[in-house]
Amino acid sequence: MKFNGGEYDVIVVGAGHAGCEAALASARMGCKTLVITMSLDSIALMPCNPSIGGTGKGHLVREIDALGGEMGINIDKTFIQSRMLNTAKGPAVHSLRAQADKYKYHKEMKKTLENQENLDLVMDEVIDIISEENIVKGVSTKLGANYYCKALILSTGVYLNSKIYIGEVSFYEGPNALGYSKYLTDSLVKLGLRMRRFKTGTPARIHRDSIDFSKMEIQMGDEKIIPFSFINDELELRQEPCYLTRTTENTHKIIMDNIKRSAMYSGEIESVGPRYCPSIEDKVVRFNDKPSHQTFIEPEGLGTKEMYIQGISTSLPYEVQIDMYKSITGLENCKIMRPAYAIEYDCIDPTQLKPSLEIKGVENLFSAGQFNGTSGYEEAAAQGLIAGINAVLKIQGKDSFILDRSEAYIGVLIDDLVTKGTNEPYRMMTSRSEYRLLLRQDNADLRLTEKGYEIGLVTEERYKKFKIKKEQLDKEIERLKTERVTPKQVNKILDDLNLPKINTGMSLYEFFKRPEYDYKILEKIGKDPKTQILESVKEQCQITAKYEGYIDKQLKQIDQFKKLETKKLPQDIDYSKIDGLRLEARQKLNDIRPISIGQASRISGVSPADISVLLIYLEQIKRGRGERIEQ
Amino acid sequence: MKFNGGEYDVIVVGAGHAGCEAALASARMGCKTLVITMSLDSIALMPCNPSIGGTGKGHLVREIDALGGEMGINIDKTFIQSRMLNTAKGPAVHSLRAQADKYKYHKEMKKTLENQENLDLVMDEVIDIISEENIVKGVSTKLGANYYCKALILSTGVYLNSKIYIGEVSFYEGPNALGYSKYLTDSLVKLGLRMRRFKTGTPARIHRDSIDFSKMEIQMGDEKIIPFSFINDELELRQEPCYLTRTTENTHKIIMDNIKRSAMYSGEIESVGPRYCPSIEDKVVRFNDKPSHQTFIEPEGLGTKEMYIQGISTSLPYEVQIDMYKSITGLENCKIMRPAYAIEYDCIDPTQLKPSLEIKGVENLFSAGQFNGTSGYEEAAAQGLIAGINAVLKIQGKDSFILDRSEAYIGVLIDDLVTKGTNEPYRMMTSRSEYRLLLRQDNADLRLTEKGYEIGLVTEERYKKFKIKKEQLDKEIERLKTERVTPKQVNKILDDLNLPKINTGMSLYEFFKRPEYDYKILEKIGKDPKTQILESVKEQCQITAKYEGYIDKQLKQIDQFKKLETKKLPQDIDYSKIDGLRLEARQKLNDIRPISIGQASRISGVSPADISVLLIYLEQIKRGRGERIEQ
Ligand SMILES: Cc1cc2nc3c(=O)[nH]c(=O)nc-3n(C[C@H](O)[C@H](O)[C@H](O)COP(=O)(O)OP(=O)(O)OC[C@H]3O[C@@H](n4cnc5c(N)ncnc54)[C@H](O)[C@@H]3O)c2cc1C
Ligand SMILES: Cc1cc2nc3c(=O)[nH]c(=O)nc-3n(C[C@H](O)[C@H](O)[C@H](O)COP(=O)(O)OP(=O)(O)OC[C@H]3O[C@@H](n4cnc5c(N)ncnc54)[C@H](O)[C@@H]3O)c2cc1C
Repeated sequence: MKFNGGEYDVIVVGAGHAGCEAALASARMGCKTLVITMSLDSIALMPCNPSIGGTGKGHLVREIDALGGEMGINIDKTFIQSRMLNTAKGPAVHSLRAQADKYKYHKEMKKTLENQENLDLVMDEVIDIISEENIVKGVSTKLGANYYCKALILSTGVYLNSKIYIGEVSFYEGPNALGYSKYLTDSLVKLGLRMRRFKTGTPARIHRDSIDFSKMEIQMGDEKIIPFSFINDELELRQEPCYLTRTTENTHKIIMDNIKRSAMYSGEIESVGPRYCPSIEDKVVRFNDKPSHQTFIEPEGLGTKEMYIQGISTSLPYEVQIDMYKSITGLENCKIMRPAYAIEYDCIDPTQLKPSLEIKGVENLFSAGQFNGTSGYEEAAAQGLIAGINAVLKIQGKDSFILDRSEAYIGVLIDDLVTKGTNEPYRMMTSRSEYRLLLRQDNADLRLTEKGYEIGLVTEERYKKFKIKKEQLDKEIERLKTERVTPKQVNKILDDLNLPKINTGMSLYEFFKRPEYDYKILEKIGKDPKTQILESVKEQCQITAKYEGYIDKQLKQIDQFKKLETKKLPQDIDYSKIDGLRLEARQKLNDIRPISIGQASRISGVSPADISVLLIYLEQIKRGRGERIEQ
Repeated sequence: MKFNGGEYDVIVVGAGHAGCEAALASARMGCKTLVITMSLDSIALMPCNPSIGGTGKGHLVREIDALGGEMGINIDKTFIQSRMLNTAKGPAVHSLRAQADKYKYHKEMKKTLENQENLDLVMDEVIDIISEENIVKGVSTKLGANYYCKALILSTGVYLNSKIYIGEVSFYEGPNALGYSKYLTDSLVKLGLRMRRFKTGTPARIHRDSIDFSKMEIQMGDEKIIPFSFINDELELRQEPCYLTRTTENTHKIIMDNIKRSAMYSGEIESVGPRYCPSIEDKVVRFNDKPSHQTFIEPEGLGTKEMYIQGISTSLPYEVQIDMYKSITGLENCKIMRPAYAIEYDCIDPTQLKPSLEIKGVENLFSAGQFNGTSGYEEAAAQGLIAGINAVLKIQGKDSFILDRSEAYIGVLIDDLVTKGTNEPYRMMTSRSEYRLLLRQDNADLRLTEKGYEIGLVTEERYKKFKIKKEQLDKEIERLKTERVTPKQVNKILDDLNLPKINTGMSLYEFFKRPEYDYKILEKIGKDPKTQILESVKEQCQITAKYEGYIDKQLKQIDQFKKLETKKLPQDIDYSKIDGLRLEARQKLNDIRPISIGQASRISGVSPADISVLLIYLEQIKRGRGERIEQ
C-alpha cells in the first residue's frame, strides 16, 4: 500500500523552530528539501512564551542570524516590543529580547518556507524511518507515502508520545490541542536509539480585560530598537507594554495546600523538567523562604486579548489554577482562556550525537531541537541550522561544520549536549560559556558571517554589508590607535564636562580605555571620525578598547583551548584496547567518540591522567600513520 | 474531582460558525455567556472552501446580517475577492460570494468574541451534559470543570468522533490535524438523542508556484464591491484573482481506474455525504457522460501560497490523488501541501428539534450547525444565530423567535430540517424556497432588521441606517407613483437613445415596469429624484416596479400560507388519539410535533386528508377550550 512520494536530498521531519532553520539551510545550500509536518498551521509555533531571545538565548539568535539563519529576520518582522537586557552590566551579558506577535511569527515563517526555492512542504505524519543496514534511506508516512532521501533530519520537538498533565487529568495530545506523534518512537528504538522522557510546562493564558493593570508596573520597550538581524539597520514600531506583578503569600499557600495534586508532585509525572524554567510550584517549594515571585504579563500578539503569565507555569489542577492565578496581584478577577499544563514527551540522550548532530551508528540521520534534549525556541533553531548545514555537507562529501566553544554559543550548546549530555531539558545561559567576553551578541557577525558565507548561507547582500562594517571597523581601530590627544588639547573641555582630566598624551584608543569616555566625548574634543561610520562600529571600537585586557586574556586561554581542540581523534579508535585508560574512561570514550582531545577532556569521567594517556597514544599512531590524524 | 467552574445563563459548546453566532447573540442580548471550544486557534475556522456566500448561501449571510449577526461584518473585514453571482438572471437568484482570507477571518472573529461583553471564552472539551430529569443544567469538561447554565447550545460541527479517510488510510482526528471530540456522543445518546453519521470532504491544497496559470482562465472580482453587511456602504480592496480550469479525460480515467480505492466506494465509509457538494469521484461516476468538470483555483489567503482546488474533493488514496490532480489542466506539475480527505462525524436527526432549535424532550438544550445535519458555514451561522436568540428568549420566559418560510431563507432552512429532516448534509439553495422572488438578498434588511431590533440584536447605528433607507424608499416609491411622464416629454429623448417610445402618459412607476428603463434613463428625461438617495433604494424601487406582478402573486400565495401557519397546534396533543388520522400520520405528527397546521402539512407522510382531520380537531378544541390555541 505504500507508494513512492518522491526523492529528495534532505528530508526534515517537523516544522518547529529547529525544522524551519534546518530546511531553509538545506534548501538555500542548493539541496532538494522536503519538510513533513503534522500541521501546516503550527509552523514555528510558540507554544509557550511569546518572545525570542533573552539572556544567552539572544546570543544564539544573533549567531543564527550571522550564519544566514532565519530566526532573527523573522522576529524583526513580527516583534511587538524589544529590549536589550542587562545593560547595567558588562557587554558580555547584554542580551536582546523581543516580544513576538506569535501568530504573525508563525505566518511569516510559513510564508518564508513557502517562498523558498528547492523546498517542498507537506502536511503528514512520519511513522517510520526507512533504513538499510543502519543507513537512512527515507521515511514512511501515515498517509501512505514513502519519501526517499540522502539525509534525514529529525526535529519532532515535544510531539513524540506527548502527554498533557493538568492536575489529576492527563491525556495524549500535542500543544494547543494539536495531534501527537504516536509511532515514530518505536521506529527509533528499533534503529537502536536510547530514548528518554522529558517534560516542560506552560502557564495559563488570561483575558486582557480581566486584568487590573493599575496594580502592576508598566514595562516599556527600549526607545531605540536594536534589530536582531544584522541585515536590518533600523526598525520602528509602536512598542506594546508588558506588565510586572508578583505572587502573594496567598498564592504560595494555595500552592502548598494543593501540592500533592500537582501532576509533578503526585508522582504522576516522573520525567525531568527544565531546572531553569521551573514551574511555580517548583519555585515555591525550592525557595520556600521567598515570600513572592515576580511575573511579567505579556501580550500574545497584537490582534488578541490573550495574555501570557510569564514564569507561572504549573501542572496543578484547573480548579486550583484558577484560585492560584486569582491570588496574584492584579489578577484578582482574572479569566483563564487556556489553562496551564505540563507536557511530557520522548526525546533522545544527546550523547548519541556527533558534534555535527548526526546520530552515531545511524548513517545520514541527523537531529535537532527539543528532540535532542533541549528546551527553548532559540536552542532549537540553533541546532536546526547546524543540522541542516551538516546534512548538506555530508551529502556533498565535505567536512562537517563544527563551531567550537571559543567561537560561538552554538558551539557551547552542541558541545555540552554531545559531550556531557543532559539530565533535564537543556537551556542556554551566558554562564555556560568560558569565553563570554568574546562571544558577545554584538560581535556575532564578526565571529560568524565569514563562515556563513563560505558555507553558502550568507547572502551577497548580507556579506556586502558585513564587509563594509568590517572595513570601517578596521580603519577606525587603526585611526584610534594612531590619532593622539594631549592634555593641552582636551583637559579644558573635559573639565567643563565635569570629567576627569588626562595627565599625558595618548592615542585615542588608550583614551577610550577610561570608562567615562565614549564617542560623544570624542566629538566634543573634535576627534570624532571624519567620515560617517556605523553606530555598531563605534560600539565595537569602544568595547574593544575598554575590555582589551580581559579580551586578551581570554584570547590566550582560547589559544590553549584550541591546541587541544585541534588534536583530532580518529573516529575508529577502540578505546577499550588503549592501555592505561581507566575503565570508566574507556567506556565513556567509546560511547561519546570525541572528535578531539579537547572534547575528550570535557567528558565527565575522563580524567587529566586519561587525557595524558590519549596524548601519548596519539603521538604513537601519528608516528605510525601520521597522515590519518592531520587536521 | 469535578469542581464548579461557574454559572452562566447560556453555554455554547464549540466556536465554529454556528457557535460564534450563537454566543454573540446571547451575550449581546444581555445573557452571561460561556463558549467552550476544543481549540482557541480554530475559532470560525474554514476547513473547506475559503469563501462565504454563493447561491442561496449569500442570502443566508445577508439575513444573518440584517438580524444583527456577525458573519457579514466579518467577511467584509476579511474578503479578498467579491462577486455578485447570477447577475444575468433575475434578482431572486442574485447571490453575493466573497473569497476570504481564512486566517484573517478566524483572527477577526476571535477578536470579536474576545471583545464581546458578557462573553467568556475557554479552551476545553465538553465530555458530558449535566441534566436532571431531562432538564439541562450544565456541562462537564475534560479538564475537570462543571459549568452550570440555564440553557445549553451544542454546535460541535464535524468533531464528534470524527474520522478521516484518505483511500485505505483512516484515523480518528478533527480537521486540520486538530483533536476530535471523543466522549460527548455517549452523553447525548444517554439523553435519548438519535445520532447518525454523515460525511463531507475537502480537496487538496496546492502550492501556488507549482501551478501553471497561463493555461487557466482568470476570474476577477466585481469592479464595484457590494458589501455583505448592510452597515457597510462601501468597501475597497485590491481584488485577488481566482483561476478557472478543467479536469481532463485522463483525470476521469485515473479516477475510474482507482474508484475501488476511494474510501467512499470501497465500502469503508457508509455514511452519507452532501449530494450538492459531491466529491470528484461522485461527479465522474454520476455524470459519466460529461467529459470534463470545471474547477476554480482559489487563494486561501493573502499571506499564504496554499491554493484551494474548488470542487475536487476526494477520498482517493494520496498516491492516486497526486496523479489525479496532476491530470487537471495547469496542474501538471502541482505540489500538494495538504491532501484531500473525507471526514465522517456524529450528528443528529434534526426532526428531533423544535423550530426554535430546542431539542424536544430535553428542556433547555439547543443545537445548531453541522451537528443538526447541515453542511456549510452559512447554514451553520444562521442556525447558530437562531439558537442563540431562542436560548435567551427561553430563559427570559418569552416566546420563541421563529421565522417562517415566507420571511426568510433561515425559515426555510430550519423548517426543512425540523419538519422533513434530511438524509444527507443539508445545504441551502434558492430552489428550496417557494417565495424566492420575495426572499431576495437585496431586501433582507427590509424583511428582518425590524425583527432584529425588537429582539435587541440590531444596534442603534444599524437601525438608524435602516430607518433612513426605509424612509427614502417609501418616499421614492410614493414619488414614482405620483410623478408622471408623457410621450411628448420623453419620446424624443428615448428615440435618441435608441429605446422604445411610450404611447400614453403614465406614472414613473409604470414607466419603470419596462425592462429597458432604469434610473439612468430617469436622469436623462429629467425625472430623477431631486434629493440624493441611496443606490440600494434605487435598486429596490426598480425591482419593486419591474416585478410587481410576480411579487403580488407570491404575496397572495403567502397569505394562503400564513393562514395555515397561524393555525397553531398545541404542543401537548396526543395524535395517536385523534380519530381519522392515518397511522403513519399519527406517528409522524407525534414525532415532529408541528407548531402549526402549516408545518404539519409539510411533514412527509401527512396527507391533505390528515390535515382536514386536524383542522376539524382544532375547531373542536377551540370551541372546547378556545383560549388555549389563540395565536
Ligand atoms: C507546553 C510547553 C512549554 C514550553 N515551555 C518552554 C519554556 O518555558 N521555555 C522555553 O525556552 N521553551 C519552552 N518550550 C519549548 C519550546 O516550545 C521548544 O523548545 C521549541 O518549540 C522546540 O522547537 P522544535 O523545533 O524542537 O520542536 P517543536 O516546536 O515542538 O516542533 C516540532 C515539529 O515537529 C512536528 N512533528 C513531530 N512529530 C512529527 C512526525 N512524526 N511527523 C511529522 N511531523 C512531526 C510537529 O508537527 C512540529 O511541527 C515549551 C514547549 C511546550 C510545548
Ligand atoms: C473536510 C471538510 C469539508 C467540508 N466541505 C464543505 C463544503 O464543501 N461545503 C460546505 O458548505 N461546507 C463544508 N464543510 C462544512 C463546514 O465546514 C461546516 O458546515 C461548518 O464549519 C460547520 O460549522 P459549525 O459551527 O457547525 O461547526 P464547526 O465549524 O465544525 O465547529 C465546531 C466547533 O465545535 C468545537 N467542539 C466540538 N466538540 C466539542 C466539545 N466536545 N467540546 C468543546 N468544543 C467542541 C470545535 O472545537 C469547533 O470549535 C466541510 C467541513 C469539513 C471539515
